[in-house]
Amino acid sequence: MLQVREAKKGRATEEMEKVADNEEISLESLVKEVASGRVVIPKNVKKEEIDPIGIGKGLRTKINANVGTSPDFDDFDEEVEKAKIAVKNGADTVMDLSTGGDLDKIRKEIISSLDVPVGSVPIYHAAVKSTRRKDDVIEMTSDDIFNSIREHAEDGMDYVTIHCGVTKDAIETLKDRGRLMDFVSRGGSFLAAWILHNGEENPLYDEFDYLMEIAREYDLTLSLGDGLRPGCIADASDDAQFRELLTLGELVEKSREGDVQAMVEGPGHLPLDHVESNVKLQKEICNGAPFYVLGPLVTDIAPGYDHIVGAIGGALAAWKGADYLCYVTPSEHLCLPSKQDVKEGVIASKLAAHAADLANGLDRDMDKDMSEARRDFDWEKQFKMALDSEKAKDMREERPTEVDPDTCSMCSNLCALKMVRDYLEEEDEQ
Amino acid sequence: MLQVREAKKGRATEEMEKVADNEEISLESLVKEVASGRVVIPKNVKKEEIDPIGIGKGLRTKINANVGTSPDFDDFDEEVEKAKIAVKNGADTVMDLSTGGDLDKIRKEIISSLDVPVGSVPIYHAAVKSTRRKDDVIEMTSDDIFNSIREHAEDGMDYVTIHCGVTKDAIETLKDRGRLMDFVSRGGSFLAAWILHNGEENPLYDEFDYLMEIAREYDLTLSLGDGLRPGCIADASDDAQFRELLTLGELVEKSREGDVQAMVEGPGHLPLDHVESNVKLQKEICNGAPFYVLGPLVTDIAPGYDHIVGAIGGALAAWKGADYLCYVTPSEHLCLPSKQDVKEGVIASKLAAHAADLANGLDRDMDKDMSEARRDFDWEKQFKMALDSEKAKDMREERPTEVDPDTCSMCSNLCALKMVRDYLEEEDEQ
Repeated sequence: MLQVREAKKGRATEEMEKVADNEEISLESLVKEVASGRVVIPKNVKKEEIDPIGIGKGLRTKINANVGTSPDFDDFDEEVEKAKIAVKNGADTVMDLSTGGDLDKIRKEIISSLDVPVGSVPIYHAAVKSTRRKDDVIEMTSDDIFNSIREHAEDGMDYVTIHCGVTKDAIETLKDRGRLMDFVSRGGSFLAAWILHNGEENPLYDEFDYLMEIAREYDLTLSLGDGLRPGCIADASDDAQFRELLTLGELVEKSREGDVQAMVEGPGHLPLDHVESNVKLQKEICNGAPFYVLGPLVTDIAPGYDHIVGAIGGALAAWKGADYLCYVTPSEHLCLPSKQDVKEGVIASKLAAHAADLANGLDRDMDKDMSEARRDFDWEKQFKMALDSEKAKDMREERPTEVDPDTCSMCSNLCALKMVRDYLEEEDEQ
Repeated sequence: MLQVREAKKGRATEEMEKVADNEEISLESLVKEVASGRVVIPKNVKKEEIDPIGIGKGLRTKINANVGTSPDFDDFDEEVEKAKIAVKNGADTVMDLSTGGDLDKIRKEIISSLDVPVGSVPIYHAAVKSTRRKDDVIEMTSDDIFNSIREHAEDGMDYVTIHCGVTKDAIETLKDRGRLMDFVSRGGSFLAAWILHNGEENPLYDEFDYLMEIAREYDLTLSLGDGLRPGCIADASDDAQFRELLTLGELVEKSREGDVQAMVEGPGHLPLDHVESNVKLQKEICNGAPFYVLGPLVTDIAPGYDHIVGAIGGALAAWKGADYLCYVTPSEHLCLPSKQDVKEGVIASKLAAHAADLANGLDRDMDKDMSEARRDFDWEKQFKMALDSEKAKDMREERPTEVDPDTCSMCSNLCALKMVRDYLEEEDEQ
C-alpha cells in the first residue's frame, strides 16, 4: 500500500485520517493534496507505530532536528538522547546524520527509540564505508550507494535525502560561473568528488527509475537534496543553485508519475530579501512540491547564534510557503552540537514555525490563551502554555518579585496591567 | 545650537560630519534628512563627548538596550554593569528605565559611564516619586512630570520617551472597542490612570509647546512613545493603537515646525503578516519620521526566548523600513533581566539589525569576509569577524576536532569544503 496510490484512487488511509484530524482540515482535501504530491506523509511501510505527520500545502509548518555521530564524537548514547530531547521539545521529525562509530547500530536504535518519522542521508553511509575500506570517498560504487538506500529503507527509514541534482551539468555551471564556497553540502560534495574523479554521471540521477523502485517498495519518501545550496550570503541564488533546482523540478514530475512521494530541499544561506523569491521559485519550478529549507540563514557573521539567524529566515520562509524547516543549532559552523544546543535549536525553529503559522491564520488560540493567562496573572497557565515551561518557570524563580507576587520583578507594583485596571473598572461603574 | 536648525540652514555640524563618515554616506544628503526630520541625531547640548549616531532614513539600523533597577532589584552596580555589557556587545544606545532605589544616582552614573547616547522615560521618575510621597501614581502633578523631564535633560539625557498620545480620546477608543490587554506600557498606564482619575487631558499632549521649549533648550530628542501599543497578538493593529498613532503623526509635524527632533515608537506584539503594514503606515502617518520598534514580538507563547521572537520581528521590521530596534531579552514577561540576558538580548537584536541592513544592501562585505575566512579555514579571522568572538571560540574549543584540525567536529575529515576542492583543482589543471 502506497499513500499516494491510495490517494490517487480517492481512498483515505489511516495515516491520512490521523493527519487530517491533527491538522483540523477536511480529509477530502488532504486526500487530494496527497494525490497531487503537494503533501507528503513520510512513513515506511515496515514501520509499525509512528505518529504520522503531513508536510505540505495547508498544513502546519513542520520542523526537523538533525542528530548523529561524527568522526570526532561517536558517543552512541548521547546521540540517541539528543534525538529524544529534540522530540520532547517539539521536533516533528529527526534525521540521523551519523558518520562516526557503528552506523548500523545507531541508525536502528534511533529509529526504534522514536515515535516520529525518521530520515537519513544514505550517501553518508556509503561514503563512510568507502573511506573505511579504501581510504577515499571516491572509491564507492554505484551499488554501494543504492545498497545503502535499500538498507536504510529496510531498517524502517521514513524518508531519505538524495542529492540527485548534483549532475555533471550542474558542476559545469558551478565551474563556469564560480562562487565563493563551492560545496557546503556533505552529500553533494561526496557525489561531486566522485563525478569529477570518475567522469561519470551521478548514479542517483542516471538511475532515478531504480531509485523509485526501491522507494515504492517501502513507500520511502524522497527528499531531493540541494547539494549545490549556497553556503554563504555571497553565493545566494546563484546559477549553480538554480541549475540544480531545475533538475529537482524534473525529478518531482517523475516521482509523481511513478507514485513516489517527493519533497525538495532548499537553502541554506540567503539574505532576507531573497527568501520569499526563493520559496516562490521553488514552488513554481517544482509544481507545488513540499519545500524543506535549512534555515535559511540570513547572515554569516553570527556563529554561536545561528539558531537565531535560522529562526529569522525560517519564519519568513514558512510564512511565504516553505513547509518544513530544518533546525540550526548554536554550534553550526563551529562543532557537533551538544544536547543543550539541540534543545535550543529545536525551540528556535519551533517558535519560527509557529510565528509563520500564526501569520497564515493557524493556531491563533494558542497565543490568545497565553495572553489571557498573562492578563489574569495566572502563572501556572502561562508556564503550561509556554514552549519551554521549565525555562520560563526557572527564570521567574531565579529573579522573583517580593513586592507584588502577582506580577514579575521587572515592574512589580508598577505593573502596567494592574495600574490602569482599577481606574477603567471605576469608570465602567459610573 | 540645534542640529535641526543648523541643518535647515544647510549647515553641517560636527556630529553630522561624524555620522556621515561612519555611515559612509554623503554629508550633503545627511544634512537634508536631518533638516526634514527623517533622520535624528540624539545628543544633549550639555553632553561633552559621546559618539554621535544618526537614526533614520538611509542609515544602518540602530539597536537600543534597556537597563535599570526595579522595585524588586535595585542593585545600582549591576545595572551600570549591564549598561556596559550592552555597549560592549553592540548596543548603539542605552535607556535607563530605573524604578527602584536612588533614581537620581543611577541616572547620572549611567550617563557618565557610557559614550553612547542615553535615553530615559521621565514619567517613571515622576510616578515613582509620587508613589513614594503619596502612595499612588495618580497623585503626581503636571509639574512633577515636566520637572522630571527637565531634570533628566539637565543631567545630559540625549532623548526621552514621552507618551503624548495617551489622550482622553484614545482612552475612549480603547474603552469603546475593547482589547484583551488594556495597557502593557508602564508610562502609558501611569498616564491613563492619572487621566481617568483626574478627568483631565494628558499634560504631555495639552502642553506640548512647553515640552518643546524644554526640548529646544537641550536639543533633547523626543521619542513619541506608544502607550497604547498592543501587548499581545490578539490586540495587534487595533483601533486604540492607530488612534494613538494619528496623534503622534500630528505631534511629529509640530516638532518639525518647532525645530525639535522627534522619532516615533511602535509595537510591540504583531504577527509576522502585520509587520510590514505597520511600518509603512507609521512612515505614511508620521511623514517619514524615524521609527523605533519594540521587538516586534511575533508570537506570545515563547517566554524565555523572547529575544529570538523579537529578532524575527525586528529583522523584518527593519528590512521594511523601521530604523531603530529596542532589544528584548530572554527574561521579557518573566523577570528583570540578568547580565547574561542583557548580552543575549543585545546580540539577538544586533544580528536582526544586520540581517535587515544586508537585505537593504548595506555592509555585505562583513559577511563576505567571514565567508572567505570560513572557506580558507582561517579560524582566527572567523572569531575576529564573529558578532560574539568569545562564544564562538569557546564552543569550538569545548567540542574540538582531533581528526582534522582545519575543520570542525561536525564533519572533520568529511568536510564538504575540503572534499571537493582537490578534484575541482585537478580538473582545472587538465
